[in-house]
Amino acid sequence: MASIKDVAKMAGVSVATVSRVLNNKGYVGQDTREKVESSILELNYKPNEVARSLFKKQSNTIGLIVPDIMNPFFPELARAVEDTAIKLGYNVILCNSDANREKEQAYLDVLQQKYVNGIIVSSNTLTADQIIEINIPVVSIDREISKGLPTIVVENKKGAIAATRFLKSKGCKRIAHIRGTDGIVNAEERCEGYKEVVDQELWFGESYIVNGNYEMQSSIKATLELLSQHPEIDGIFAANDIMAIGAMKAAHQLGKKVPDELSIIGFDGISLSAATIPELTTIVQPIYELGEKATTLLVNLMEQKSVEKTYFKFDVELIERNST
Amino acid sequence: MASIKDVAKMAGVSVATVSRVLNNKGYVGQDTREKVESSILELNYKPNEVARSLFKKQSNTIGLIVPDIMNPFFPELARAVEDTAIKLGYNVILCNSDANREKEQAYLDVLQQKYVNGIIVSSNTLTADQIIEINIPVVSIDREISKGLPTIVVENKKGAIAATRFLKSKGCKRIAHIRGTDGIVNAEERCEGYKEVVDQELWFGESYIVNGNYEMQSSIKATLELLSQHPEIDGIFAANDIMAIGAMKAAHQLGKKVPDELSIIGFDGISLSAATIPELTTIVQPIYELGEKATTLLVNLMEQKSVEKTYFKFDVELIERNST
Repeated sequence: MASIKDVAKMAGVSVATVSRVLNNKGYVGQDTREKVESSILELNYKPNEVARSLFKKQSNTIGLIVPDIMNPFFPELARAVEDTAIKLGYNVILCNSDANREKEQAYLDVLQQKYVNGIIVSSNTLTADQIIEINIPVVSIDREISKGLPTIVVENKKGAIAATRFLKSKGCKRIAHIRGTDGIVNAEERCEGYKEVVDQELWFGESYIVNGNYEMQSSIKATLELLSQHPEIDGIFAANDIMAIGAMKAAHQLGKKVPDELSIIGFDGISLSAATIPELTTIVQPIYELGEKATTLLVNLMEQKSVEKTYFKFDVELIERNST
Repeated sequence: MASIKDVAKMAGVSVATVSRVLNNKGYVGQDTREKVESSILELNYKPNEVARSLFKKQSNTIGLIVPDIMNPFFPELARAVEDTAIKLGYNVILCNSDANREKEQAYLDVLQQKYVNGIIVSSNTLTADQIIEINIPVVSIDREISKGLPTIVVENKKGAIAATRFLKSKGCKRIAHIRGTDGIVNAEERCEGYKEVVDQELWFGESYIVNGNYEMQSSIKATLELLSQHPEIDGIFAANDIMAIGAMKAAHQLGKKVPDELSIIGFDGISLSAATIPELTTIVQPIYELGEKATTLLVNLMEQKSVEKTYFKFDVELIERNST
């Protein structure tokens, strides 16, 4: 197989010149370019990606760090990122961090060592300093790290207000909230939205907030306790769909009929939310679009194209199904 | 930052010798090795991954080609592959092929160009020739490409026989099968297992086989038609869990009670199968272990370690829940 040296020799130029032609960067005279291109064709030279990434100190690869690809929110996101990346000429390295600070730092290190061109990360432990220290573009998705960094999020509080008001409009008087993990920005925002409606429009003098840690089993347990202690509860807003499904299972165990005796609404709009019986009413995030936008933004930053803004807050939409 | 040339210069050896020390390959005298190592320490030289992959023509990266990470079988598999790979020092490039022959070939090409060390693939269009042509180890998972290639699969036929017999043991007399996509080996094997039990133990003179294409919406449609035409059906074996959930939804639409009037059993054991009400009885594949085994086998092949066998057929297990 012909090497870049063979091409340089045949064209009578330096390897650096061949590299400039290949990467379309730096000045190369028209005659020289043509000589190089015809040598490339004649020798059937195929530049390999690793050699090119050494020249360019880049690998045409994007790192995607998520807490856990098994959390049903992330496969759709990962699919969108990979679809968009491949169209733009990049591959995606998948990293599962378990939201663990050390694992996240280890991934940042190894991705840099591999000259990835940029990173998309969903993290609630990384700090702005850690992001700034790595010298390549990073886009934060789903979880905001700092206002100053490129970020893709959704209207969490607005969605939570809509969810709680919707339960109220369905006649619910005692509405509980199964909140997400403490300290995660989107969990706090969703909880605030719920509290705002309850405090201003529904005050019932009791706290009906329990923590389901964004996880089904925790939600089942929390809902069983909540409904046993407070049988008056007639509506539940769960901060994600997985916890809403957990709440449905808990209600079923207690013989409470959904939606006749208890209305349940979730958040996310994962495909699983349409697989349950009854299907789940939920606040739908445009998950695929979030992944698409994160990737095009990242690639624009990587390719130093002009970017109008780097902070995007997407709207959410209430989809009524049969659980309310 | 110090380069490999600086190390070579300080140690008074060639760059190739430094590379041999770094990669721990080829003969290097003890004195020379020590000189190189102390120079590396003194200069605080950090070999970068891309440069190393050029020396070694490898990138410490594995490609994982799946049809679609959004199909709930694959996130658990991808998680297992990534967990195992990172422990062994490799990153994972995720590729979604949509089971499309051209996309698969394009991924094989780009992964080779990037000097990935090996590939794990779940495909039913790739041929043994295509695999052999790429000059790196490939492990086929979930779908067998050829008996001669490294392969990780499960006992599909045996599982299907167990599923069908289990419905029979529950008193079902008219058992239908929602089969997977035509031409996919595991769909054919599961269908054969069903037919064997029906032909030998249950013959009822009718064909109750419909195609759900391994997909929920197709399964809902197929089940609605099937149950409308054949209200005598009292048991359904669906070739995957997603289609079993589709069958549950179809039964619910027709007012048929599961499991009282209709028993349903799935195949796969995806986490979703425990999220439905009623929870799904299913034939559980050890999905995580399949991913682990595929990765350790691949890494052993990549690192040219001795490998006893390269074909693994894992057992499956019937988990009884509430849909039967």
